[in-house]
Amino acid sequence: MELSKITSPADIRGLGVTELKELCDNLREVFLEKVSAHGGHVGPNLGLVEATVALHYVFDTPNDKIVFDVSHQTYIHKMLTGRIEAFLDPSKYDEVTGYTNPKESEYDLFTIGHTSTAVSLAGGMAKARDLQGQAYNVVALVGDGSLSGGEAFEGLDEGATLKSNFIVVVNDNNMSIAENHGGLYSNLATLRETKGTASNNYFKAIGYDYLYVDNGNDIETLINAFKMVKDINHPVVVHIHTDKGHGYKPAEEHKEAFHFSAPFDLATGKLKNDDEGESYDEIFATEMLAEMNEDPKVCVLTAGTPGVLGFGPERRQEAGRQFIDVGIAEQEAAAMASGIAKAGGRPCFGVVSSFVQRAYDQLSQDISINGTPVVLNIFYGTILGMNDVTHLGWFDIALISNIPGWVFLAPATVEEYLSMQRWAMGQTQYPVAIRIPGGKVVHSDGEVNIDWSDLNKFKIEHKGSKVAIIGAGGFLSIAKETAALLKNEGIEATVINPLYLSGLDTAMLDDLKKDHQLVVTIEDGVLAGGFGEKVSGYYGTSDMKVANYGLEKKFADRYNYRQILEANRLTAPQIAEDIMKIIS
Amino acid sequence: MELSKITSPADIRGLGVTELKELCDNLREVFLEKVSAHGGHVGPNLGLVEATVALHYVFDTPNDKIVFDVSHQTYIHKMLTGRIEAFLDPSKYDEVTGYTNPKESEYDLFTIGHTSTAVSLAGGMAKARDLQGQAYNVVALVGDGSLSGGEAFEGLDEGATLKSNFIVVVNDNNMSIAENHGGLYSNLATLRETKGTASNNYFKAIGYDYLYVDNGNDIETLINAFKMVKDINHPVVVHIHTDKGHGYKPAEEHKEAFHFSAPFDLATGKLKNDDEGESYDEIFATEMLAEMNEDPKVCVLTAGTPGVLGFGPERRQEAGRQFIDVGIAEQEAAAMASGIAKAGGRPCFGVVSSFVQRAYDQLSQDISINGTPVVLNIFYGTILGMNDVTHLGWFDIALISNIPGWVFLAPATVEEYLSMQRWAMGQTQYPVAIRIPGGKVVHSDGEVNIDWSDLNKFKIEHKGSKVAIIGAGGFLSIAKETAALLKNEGIEATVINPLYLSGLDTAMLDDLKKDHQLVVTIEDGVLAGGFGEKVSGYYGTSDMKVANYGLEKKFADRYNYRQILEANRLTAPQIAEDIMKIIS
Repeated sequence: MELSKITSPADIRGLGVTELKELCDNLREVFLEKVSAHGGHVGPNLGLVEATVALHYVFDTPNDKIVFDVSHQTYIHKMLTGRIEAFLDPSKYDEVTGYTNPKESEYDLFTIGHTSTAVSLAGGMAKARDLQGQAYNVVALVGDGSLSGGEAFEGLDEGATLKSNFIVVVNDNNMSIAENHGGLYSNLATLRETKGTASNNYFKAIGYDYLYVDNGNDIETLINAFKMVKDINHPVVVHIHTDKGHGYKPAEEHKEAFHFSAPFDLATGKLKNDDEGESYDEIFATEMLAEMNEDPKVCVLTAGTPGVLGFGPERRQEAGRQFIDVGIAEQEAAAMASGIAKAGGRPCFGVVSSFVQRAYDQLSQDISINGTPVVLNIFYGTILGMNDVTHLGWFDIALISNIPGWVFLAPATVEEYLSMQRWAMGQTQYPVAIRIPGGKVVHSDGEVNIDWSDLNKFKIEHKGSKVAIIGAGGFLSIAKETAALLKNEGIEATVINPLYLSGLDTAMLDDLKKDHQLVVTIEDGVLAGGFGEKVSGYYGTSDMKVANYGLEKKFADRYNYRQILEANRLTAPQIAEDIMKIIS
Repeated sequence: MELSKITSPADIRGLGVTELKELCDNLREVFLEKVSAHGGHVGPNLGLVEATVALHYVFDTPNDKIVFDVSHQTYIHKMLTGRIEAFLDPSKYDEVTGYTNPKESEYDLFTIGHTSTAVSLAGGMAKARDLQGQAYNVVALVGDGSLSGGEAFEGLDEGATLKSNFIVVVNDNNMSIAENHGGLYSNLATLRETKGTASNNYFKAIGYDYLYVDNGNDIETLINAFKMVKDINHPVVVHIHTDKGHGYKPAEEHKEAFHFSAPFDLATGKLKNDDEGESYDEIFATEMLAEMNEDPKVCVLTAGTPGVLGFGPERRQEAGRQFIDVGIAEQEAAAMASGIAKAGGRPCFGVVSSFVQRAYDQLSQDISINGTPVVLNIFYGTILGMNDVTHLGWFDIALISNIPGWVFLAPATVEEYLSMQRWAMGQTQYPVAIRIPGGKVVHSDGEVNIDWSDLNKFKIEHKGSKVAIIGAGGFLSIAKETAALLKNEGIEATVINPLYLSGLDTAMLDDLKKDHQLVVTIEDGVLAGGFGEKVSGYYGTSDMKVANYGLEKKFADRYNYRQILEANRLTAPQIAEDIMKIIS
């Protein structure tokens, strides 16, 4: 059928098997056309073309509910549910997000982006359905990689106790973003090898009925399987074995690289723009490989995102057992790091800002209360990073700086970062978190030679008077720019690089009272609970005026960097303008 | 042997079986003597007397490492590791904490109090041991109830991949604090029924070798089992079936009541002081039972602590399927609540302040980004509540008030609480969190009639001038007391009840500028990231002076209420004194 005619899943429900196969081929082709030009999640979607078609073919969506885990595998789902134009027409490519989004369609139930949540959310829907005496199918679709997350286990464990319809489709492509890690995955392998007949079965063990589908890329098999469980009256797992990247050779062969890809050449699979320039993943990986080579006690932990840390397959191999991927399991990475530090190892857990919030309790209880010298490196903790609402790097300042015991550092340059990281790994006194700066990679003019154990000593980058501007981390650059603009107005402002987010340099702040009337703070995150408010609180009963710059406390989705900075008056000209008003 | 002679586990390693049995009897007797007089965790320790003795008998502690989950079951462990006097001598009862504590003994590896962490921490120690080429046994002891927590699953999943010694002892007494919930527990039941021979086995499924011990209260059997796994070269689960409350009839018969008990009469098991007076658990349970009776869509969720919410066995039965205990699994409770709300149910998740931080990501992603109208009730969010370092109720203000989208309410009285709760449950516009006040239960003078959907409208309790004191939640009482003291000094202060913690009443704050020179904030928690700093931030560029009162950002353990308030200048006389200085 002509793809542009698909307005809802009802349009495909009358098709025969041959037509459905043809439909899958066409969907895959259009999908590849778009992602090769636009970038996006490639492998997860290619593997799920047939299953997505089969789900909408068998289930009476949107009356029946499908909750997609992570939801980065929903491009085909979007094509079938009234949004085909956003795939056919390049000018409309950006009209849909890369995740499910209830604002786009009633077929999308939740805005999702973090892993391991779908079973819990779907379980809640099934519960509400039962409380209200309604009848519809509730389906959670979850990838094997997501099963390593504690929330997925909690959801499965509770979901198993439902005495009603509850269908969990496990999309098993034997991959997380990279390879899977964890004992569970041996069981999934055994189940695949035995075509689901192995006597030990994780899903059965926690209370599920179970159905195995070996060829998860065959539309007919899938339709039959889903028909078997439709309207079932108890919890069941349908374990489908799919092929990540299915139908596109480069993605089948390079599954990790094609999990998510920037625009690429469709014929060869090569990235269109492979010149990344200097980046912190490379800086981190180079530094940590050297440290690991030097000291067998040093190890790097990731919770399923080795690529973010610059640890591709080759570097992982080089690091050997000193590189620990715990799977998508941030709680485990944090708590395990505490155990490692306790027993004399030197662990560094590298984690994306948006995901570190999954381990808040572990940062507090397992690490800080125990004073274990874990080192945390926060990636993408910046307004200038990921801009999907589910992946914002705005909240880690408030998260970490308000937990007692953590030393939280904010380098502005590569040299500051490396100096901090070496100190953090070498000491055993504190848990230390380092917020890798966003924006362009910046270098210091000279060598950085600071004793970081002398906590909370801010650095004066330029001494002036009347106005002091404190720019934290990557936003030190905005402070400098602002000072340059003020100079044109005859104001020689003091510029301060705080370096620490977890404590104030009260001696310096007191000293500023002598010849300053205004202190301005600029931070790369949300104001609420952040750095600037602490400075305001400190000066509360003095005559010093304080103006805090950062983001307002509200979510944003797929924002434009420039626009969000401007909307929050976070650009140098705006800040300079405000300052002139305040001091006039 | 004479208990007072036990200075370390070495003292018991030469004993024969008969002597060991006698030892267990004596330990149990002394234990009961102490907890009946002092209060403490009764059932968990009684069930583990034999296993604790057997562990220290077989393993070469402290060279071998034992990590206790939650660690509320370590009273016997403490008696065997140099701390027997704290059990024999009533004047020394308070010299040990109720949890493991490295400051007390080298046999205690971590300060632990939250559940589900031991396997992860122990796994980290095993990893560090291997990296350093050392050889010792690493044992994690975890209760069946703790297995429902996601962190326990993540720890087990990763731990299974260790290629070295790793021993997980599962203490299965078929109970959490209350009964267990989750599909996993059917498997544990089957394993108990089949003496560990059932073909489906949760632990084997995720990659563990497995040993079942049916009589987990028989010292000889336990010793043999632990000897079998000592020095093992791969991960193994030793599943021991114990009897919670073993050896004390009232605790065997009333397992939930005796999980933790206030002082009780040893002969009868009756509480020595059963008169609790008015309390929020009763107020909550009464209110929610009425709401559930009226509307089948309403439901209450707990993550394994129904007693905190006033839902004992009888009320749980009355609520039926509208009361949902997901087991110790805060992530699941929060995410499931979001699913329930999405599908038309009206969920209220009641959770202890210290435990809500385990669900930060779910509060943000699964709930707030999705705008699902989940209602959260925070219990023990107060300085005047639990004072173990692992259970502090100080951090929820910074945690929740800095997540966009949440309406976070702080009632000062029962009437305000009930009015807020009814509004929250009746509306479907916002996720709403309510912080149940600490300290004495206080009532309003009259009826509370406020439209809570008119967000962030603070309430002026008393209109004065010059000084305004904002007292949030339960600490409104301190604000009122302070105002009374100021009156003696000729200052008629304004007293404000903010009611909202998630936003400022900027109109009111602006209005205060007319005839006030100082705004004082008082909050029942840590200042960092909290309420007061936001007020300071708001007034930063104005002439208004602001003084924030709350706790300094640092942990405290088993503190005295009066002392900690005084140390932070949080008493009315101290605040009044400070105010006089500031405005003079």
